[in-house]
Amino acid sequence: MRHGHVSLVGAGPGDPDLLTRAAVRRLRRADLVLFDALVSADVLRLARRARRFFVGKRAGRPAISQEAINRLLVRAARRGLRVVRLKAGDPFVFGRGGEEALALAAAGVAFEVVPGVSAAVAAPALAGIPVTHRGLASGFAVITGHAESAYGPIIDGLAPNALTLVVLMGRSTRSALAARLVARGWRPGTPAAVIAGAATPDAAVWTGTLAGLAREPLALPAGPPATIVIGDVVALGARIGAREPMDVQDTAAGARPAREEYSTC
Amino acid sequence: MRHGHVSLVGAGPGDPDLLTRAAVRRLRRADLVLFDALVSADVLRLARRARRFFVGKRAGRPAISQEAINRLLVRAARRGLRVVRLKAGDPFVFGRGGEEALALAAAGVAFEVVPGVSAAVAAPALAGIPVTHRGLASGFAVITGHAESAYGPIIDGLAPNALTLVVLMGRSTRSALAARLVARGWRPGTPAAVIAGAATPDAAVWTGTLAGLAREPLALPAGPPATIVIGDVVALGARIGAREPMDVQDTAAGARPAREEYSTC
Repeated sequence: MRHGHVSLVGAGPGDPDLLTRAAVRRLRRADLVLFDALVSADVLRLARRARRFFVGKRAGRPAISQEAINRLLVRAARRGLRVVRLKAGDPFVFGRGGEEALALAAAGVAFEVVPGVSAAVAAPALAGIPVTHRGLASGFAVITGHAESAYGPIIDGLAPNALTLVVLMGRSTRSALAARLVARGWRPGTPAAVIAGAATPDAAVWTGTLAGLAREPLALPAGPPATIVIGDVVALGARIGAREPMDVQDTAAGARPAREEYSTC
Repeated sequence: MRHGHVSLVGAGPGDPDLLTRAAVRRLRRADLVLFDALVSADVLRLARRARRFFVGKRAGRPAISQEAINRLLVRAARRGLRVVRLKAGDPFVFGRGGEEALALAAAGVAFEVVPGVSAAVAAPALAGIPVTHRGLASGFAVITGHAESAYGPIIDGLAPNALTLVVLMGRSTRSALAARLVARGWRPGTPAAVIAGAATPDAAVWTGTLAGLAREPLALPAGPPATIVIGDVVALGARIGAREPMDVQDTAAGARPAREEYSTC
């Protein structure tokens, strides 16, 4: 029997064009795909020969436990399947990829990690916000907003306004998080943005200040995940503008323009 | 005359398979590519019809000034060229992509941002190190080590051992940086790793402690760029192991195995 293996694959922020080539190959060859809630249908469609199982959260509750996912991965690889464990963004950024990797290594199953484009950087970028910028931010921190016990100790340990702060999964906790930052000494007027549904056709951006983030309604569509960015770099977004990738198709071999058609510098 | 445009494209950490599909398309169609020092030859080769110019640093000094690059981008787009500004990793992570975006927006030139896989996350991941891990790190910070004036104020403002610290471009300053962290109260025994040439055939990893990072020679090949990771997650690398992507080729249409060939869970 063929030896199976597991690929822990980052699906990127949503747009299938932001998948890596390695991810596309894994999906096309996969026999089995286990995917999470934030993976888009367009991305899943690439796994045309695979059985596809949703193993993420529904209404805030996991469909199956992490331990069950780990067991499923090990068992499927041992049966000779090419398994893709597909995670939104990057598998090692709040994806529990580390836990799955440990389980696979302990079981002696062949596996690999295929990094992906994380929404932590891409969501702001597509809204025209660079997380670093000379003179404004020489670094950035990425945290998860899903539980105060996780983000609390980290933001209490950050000097106010010393770097750009990116919060994933912070939509429901953003008021408390923003208020805590202000209480810790961050400028209430610090520019802030919430990007919902980045790299999808439904992308929408709220911009305001840290104080506004604490108390204003967001007026964003309710469904898609959100990335929060806090820091002076957010103000650059108004000058740079949203920059969704253009619709570019591959040039067919025969369509290559004559040399004369384009000049050079 | 055709309207030109500029694509600010992330080239990922080195391996051409870690380019996004959007990046590959832009390269294939490009008339002109302006690239930096850390972009690999294999990636550049995809821009088969483009003129390619190196505009990065040589021996620590920029080939041409940032202002000259900005002018070149604007001029080339106005001449109707499809221009790719290719940056290692992601264009908005220490890539001066923000400055170029501002110049293009101010000049009224059409442009887009194509996010890439940043070495900040991918280099550790390929060495088996997840930057976040339940119970060990609920967040990570990414800083540049190239100048003390840039990293100093940030690391002085980080509570010791509160998150994973990733340092890009910190190879030459790592002793001073590590010593400063210890002086600020980080545990000298905090696991640390230096990953050189991630996502290339020459990848090499040094692992040790923060104290060791401050005073030991690295014993790594001198050429390639390095990503430094500091935090308890580094210890997971020994259990997970280095996980370079496997050599996977696209399945040709005719090579699809019969349904019987693979079982399902």
